[in-house]
Amino acid sequence: MATSAPESVDLAAKLASFTEHWSPKIVGTFNGHDIMVVKVKGEFVWHSHADTDDFFLVLDGRLTIETEAGNVELGPGELFVVPQGMQHRPVAAEEAHILLIEPHGTPNTGDPATAAVKARI
Amino acid sequence: MATSAPESVDLAAKLASFTEHWSPKIVGTFNGHDIMVVKVKGEFVWHSHADTDDFFLVLDGRLTIETEAGNVELGPGELFVVPQGMQHRPVAAEEAHILLIEPHGTPNTGDPATAAVKARI
Repeated sequence: MATSAPESVDLAAKLASFTEHWSPKIVGTFNGHDIMVVKVKGEFVWHSHADTDDFFLVLDGRLTIETEAGNVELGPGELFVVPQGMQHRPVAAEEAHILLIEPHGTPNTGDPATAAVKARI
Repeated sequence: MATSAPESVDLAAKLASFTEHWSPKIVGTFNGHDIMVVKVKGEFVWHSHADTDDFFLVLDGRLTIETEAGNVELGPGELFVVPQGMQHRPVAAEEAHILLIEPHGTPNTGDPATAAVKARI
């Protein structure tokens, strides 16, 4: 049972608290997953996740998710789940704000050696 | 690997396709979970989920999640995860639009006997 009063998460306020790109920040947890916000701009690296799907919901701006099966174009209020194992690369011409959900400890690049450290904010 | 071109999910378009309240519609899947949109208005039933957390993100309108630990007030872009086992009741004075994530097959009332059938749209 809860030991403190329940608290909502204001995604816009969390996003206003940092400026870096491609540095996911953990804002909550859900069934062993991290709920994260991230600011992106430019091209990420091609990668895949062998053990998990990859949840993207655009909160602001536009995101292209290039995949081996074709490209997905996302605007605000649009989501895409990259299936487990699918090679993909997020690309944003201008800064975009994204909600991500991944199992706790998932490397954002698909490789622990190059992954960002995900701080809780 | 994918057998068809990847497709984004436009949450507003999905929400525009139905009118019922408290009837979650499945719009995608993620790691064994259903990603759902739901329109709510009025008071739901008090319930809990013994086996899962319960993810709520408000897309439009306002939602109160009453819990045994206190109430959580959510507006657009605000989320709350009800911890596994916590008694809660969603309440909305006016219609609100919500993104829900729950393991596939989770009864929305906490009880299969009274749960809504979740159609895929």
